[in-house]
Amino acid sequence: MDFQQVLEDIHSQLKTTPYKGVVASYIPELAKVDINRFGIHLRMLTGEQYAVGDYDIPFSIQSISKVLSLTLALKYVGNELWKRMDVEPSGDPFNFLSLLELERGIPRNPFINAGALVVSDVLVSHLKNPKEDFLAFVRELADDETICFNPSVAASEKETGFRNAAATNLLKSFRNIHNNVDEVLDFYFHLCSIEMSCKQLSKTFFKFANSGMNIKGKPFMTPSQAKRVNAIMLTCGFYDEAGEFAFEVGLPGKSGVGGGIVAVHPGKYCIAAWAPGLNVKGNSLLGMQALEQFTTKTGLSIF
Amino acid sequence: MDFQQVLEDIHSQLKTTPYKGVVASYIPELAKVDINRFGIHLRMLTGEQYAVGDYDIPFSIQSISKVLSLTLALKYVGNELWKRMDVEPSGDPFNFLSLLELERGIPRNPFINAGALVVSDVLVSHLKNPKEDFLAFVRELADDETICFNPSVAASEKETGFRNAAATNLLKSFRNIHNNVDEVLDFYFHLCSIEMSCKQLSKTFFKFANSGMNIKGKPFMTPSQAKRVNAIMLTCGFYDEAGEFAFEVGLPGKSGVGGGIVAVHPGKYCIAAWAPGLNVKGNSLLGMQALEQFTTKTGLSIF
Amino acid sequence: MDFQQVLEDIHSQLKTTPYKGVVASYIPELAKVDINRFGIHLRMLTGEQYAVGDYDIPFSIQSISKVLSLTLALKYVGNELWKRMDVEPSGDPFNFLSLLELERGIPRNPFINAGALVVSDVLVSHLKNPKEDFLAFVRELADDETICFNPSVAASEKETGFRNAAATNLLKSFRNIHNNVDEVLDFYFHLCSIEMSCKQLSKTFFKFANSGMNIKGKPFMTPSQAKRVNAIMLTCGFYDEAGEFAFEVGLPGKSGVGGGIVAVHPGKYCIAAWAPGLNVKGNSLLGMQALEQFTTKTGLSIF
Amino acid sequence: MDFQQVLEDIHSQLKTTPYKGVVASYIPELAKVDINRFGIHLRMLTGEQYAVGDYDIPFSIQSISKVLSLTLALKYVGNELWKRMDVEPSGDPFNFLSLLELERGIPRNPFINAGALVVSDVLVSHLKNPKEDFLAFVRELADDETICFNPSVAASEKETGFRNAAATNLLKSFRNIHNNVDEVLDFYFHLCSIEMSCKQLSKTFFKFANSGMNIKGKPFMTPSQAKRVNAIMLTCGFYDEAGEFAFEVGLPGKSGVGGGIVAVHPGKYCIAAWAPGLNVKGNSLLGMQALEQFTTKTGLSIF
Repeated sequence: MDFQQVLEDIHSQLKTTPYKGVVASYIPELAKVDINRFGIHLRMLTGEQYAVGDYDIPFSIQSISKVLSLTLALKYVGNELWKRMDVEPSGDPFNFLSLLELERGIPRNPFINAGALVVSDVLVSHLKNPKEDFLAFVRELADDETICFNPSVAASEKETGFRNAAATNLLKSFRNIHNNVDEVLDFYFHLCSIEMSCKQLSKTFFKFANSGMNIKGKPFMTPSQAKRVNAIMLTCGFYDEAGEFAFEVGLPGKSGVGGGIVAVHPGKYCIAAWAPGLNVKGNSLLGMQALEQFTTKTGLSIF
Repeated sequence: MDFQQVLEDIHSQLKTTPYKGVVASYIPELAKVDINRFGIHLRMLTGEQYAVGDYDIPFSIQSISKVLSLTLALKYVGNELWKRMDVEPSGDPFNFLSLLELERGIPRNPFINAGALVVSDVLVSHLKNPKEDFLAFVRELADDETICFNPSVAASEKETGFRNAAATNLLKSFRNIHNNVDEVLDFYFHLCSIEMSCKQLSKTFFKFANSGMNIKGKPFMTPSQAKRVNAIMLTCGFYDEAGEFAFEVGLPGKSGVGGGIVAVHPGKYCIAAWAPGLNVKGNSLLGMQALEQFTTKTGLSIF
Repeated sequence: MDFQQVLEDIHSQLKTTPYKGVVASYIPELAKVDINRFGIHLRMLTGEQYAVGDYDIPFSIQSISKVLSLTLALKYVGNELWKRMDVEPSGDPFNFLSLLELERGIPRNPFINAGALVVSDVLVSHLKNPKEDFLAFVRELADDETICFNPSVAASEKETGFRNAAATNLLKSFRNIHNNVDEVLDFYFHLCSIEMSCKQLSKTFFKFANSGMNIKGKPFMTPSQAKRVNAIMLTCGFYDEAGEFAFEVGLPGKSGVGGGIVAVHPGKYCIAAWAPGLNVKGNSLLGMQALEQFTTKTGLSIF
Repeated sequence: MDFQQVLEDIHSQLKTTPYKGVVASYIPELAKVDINRFGIHLRMLTGEQYAVGDYDIPFSIQSISKVLSLTLALKYVGNELWKRMDVEPSGDPFNFLSLLELERGIPRNPFINAGALVVSDVLVSHLKNPKEDFLAFVRELADDETICFNPSVAASEKETGFRNAAATNLLKSFRNIHNNVDEVLDFYFHLCSIEMSCKQLSKTFFKFANSGMNIKGKPFMTPSQAKRVNAIMLTCGFYDEAGEFAFEVGLPGKSGVGGGIVAVHPGKYCIAAWAPGLNVKGNSLLGMQALEQFTTKTGLSIF
């Protein structure tokens, strides 16, 4: 199959869509991104790469980083993590505090904010220099030393992050945050501020498609770890659009409000798309459509 | 791989588990089933079959029938169905009416009771003789004319089905039930009363694993329909244990309170297990473990 | 104080209000009432009566009948009633099923629909001929043999009462309805269909203002029973506007979607108002304002 | 009536109750209070005072201070306050964040924590030196210069107040907190730490029973302000036991987890009770019973 042609067809068709969604505007750094940015990068397990558009421009990966922090936390505490959170999909993000309260401080999964805050707390407990050590881990996973936090994004998140502060305090009241609230929030906001391009993302997530190994077969995590993270991405990776994504696209993946989406087909490929305009559920509008078209045109979904 | 040996190992190990869960007891017909029943049937897309234990004894498939009614409803109304329900996972079954009320009569997905009641309403609207026509459809899908309702199960469901009556009335108040409440409930309770063995189940669900075709390649539904039903099974097939099942087993599937579970690996195989004892979430305790061991031992999960 | 003048001032001022709210329209009998109807009747414990406008025209008392059914149920089961429901205010009517589900079938109070349905169930259990016996009780309390059900209102309620059917079935699933669901609903819909004028209402509720006695001092219920029903009217009598009514008016009272309101000042007086236009919370718009003006002008609130 | 005898009878009977509830233990200062403390102070509008037991020993008034902060806030912003919160009873305290989230940052009433935090924010906005100025107001209301904060109670509240921090951050995310989160919390925790005896409490609340005037007839607030605060106390003063208190006692009042309760009968008297053991709803066990017995024995309830 001519994957390059498939990507170019998708890109040229969607690029002209008049309505491209709404760029996240709660912090200045996200608001100022050009809504016309649009890139896709596809990396086959066999090594071939295909790309189109703005695939090489870094953007704020935001919640996509939750997959990376989960992966690192699992290395430290393994299945002990599931004593502090569940792995079930969580519907509405609009009432996430309600759910957290009803379920007495046990977040539904590691990809809703409350879960990611507990994951952050685990890392703050186990890492000597949390921010530096986490960045080192991401660079190793991505095999790319240029990946960085964006400190002004992290600072802006902090200034407007009252709901995250509410969630962390609520978790703390249920004793599911062990460290200082402000320290956990600072670490969490830094995670969200990491920047990558589509090309870097598809490299970073390659190992999840490849049973935990890099392209040369060097293991980075166990096949079982990769499989489990993939399962959580499928059921919980897209807020309350997870079912829709599974239904329309049929791949495990994760999105961020920066407009990035990364998805994997275990044993076959890894694909990343970026378009900053979001749909009403907070997922990249064109990114979702691009991936849907890709699996439809190629027939390469897991279902 | 010696699949027969794998099944026998799993069966002989789990069979001796002292705690086998709790048999559903809200109606006499389910309560009287022997908790020691335990069977598995595996059907490869290539035609091989492997089986162990009570794989040939019919049991009440209960909620597994929701996949069949959804499939038939999709044949009639296609994507119009999604105007009347969503495809998102739904957490807690204990407060399903709350969710339904908050979301103004739009069920979260076709596999929670509220969604299956709307699917039933669609079929009551489109089928000339709803119960007879539905049974004919199931027999065709299963290629088996012996499949039947159990009228005494259906009658017992009706006598104790106050929560389903509450849900149907609530849906009706939101105008999401178009037919008479009692007629929809009667049809729904009949669906739940269908009986099949593991062997019949794996044959019935074979087409979902085989892009909608039977073993001879004759199409029964489109590949896209099969793919979508598989996606919904993965995200919504196990009540609020859907995430756990994806995480531990890694297959689309569906369970019923009769203790049956059926799961598919698209392009590879279909597997059905039956053990009447349920875990606290209402899924077969040994059945879940059997499938988890099967994908772990064989490495044949979709993730 | 010249009470007649006070009533006439209030009536003439409010009568010209351009926006009079919205008449309940879910059943034809309520929808066809003239929105310009407006009457008030005041009955002092000392025997004086004052009245203005349409005080002598019967209307559908609807939920006001819940006070009467509660009073009769208390005669039969006394404080045993509180094992089956609570006496706490209940916020939102829009999600009353959610609350009922969360609280496992124990209604918050006897004046929300769920509570009134349980009260109806109690009466169905204890009355030989529920509808006839209840009507006889109301006629005795009102000292008026002309009071009747409106059968066409009762029939219309039944046809559209899916939410009440949902609630009754949900209550039944928690074993908090002991009789047949349809029988309880039929009785409940008849209660709502009782018709009275403001003049009849103020006579009926006189005994709650007078420690349970009629104007000649003949006891009808104990002072303690009257006191308790008054307390429940104050905290629960106006759906989620109970706090607002206590705050603005400062009297125990009860409203119905027919546009009626009745309120009592224990030891002083009983007042009934009727104006069919409702505010967004389902209480009579002019009726609320009339009572607020009355207590403000006279200083006769309980606070 | 011999009120002194009534108080002594109640006190001597309840004092010997074997189960006295549970002393609040979330901060050391509350935990160390002797559970056998028990006092009552009654102040008639005519000037007579009656007292029994530990009526002259100061204790932590905790949430009772919410009535005082509300009163001061109403002096500054009047009915503008109701744009930022409602006056409706709020059921469950256990899920107060859920309600706050569902209702988009508008607290149900000024006596739940979320409402009191917004009231605190109003005072932080309007007072030059919030803590000093508030204390001066309370001293004036109580006509007692000895009333003080307990700084170690305030400090302990802060250390464990994660739920209040969660609520304040959530309110801030809905823009219903205008000042700095930490400053509002610090002020709030100080309010809760005020100490008074039953005797001081009955003097402080005397004006609510006396149409806003002190015993010499000097106005401190308008009759309308007093009436409204009384109405809110009746419907919202006892967490989710407000209905029960109205039902059993029949007076507007307010309780605190320090074991204090104060209640007023407008136009007649003010009564304060203190017993540190709490019932499961967080209200003083003996205090509730004492007030119930008082209104039953004397017949002096508002209903």
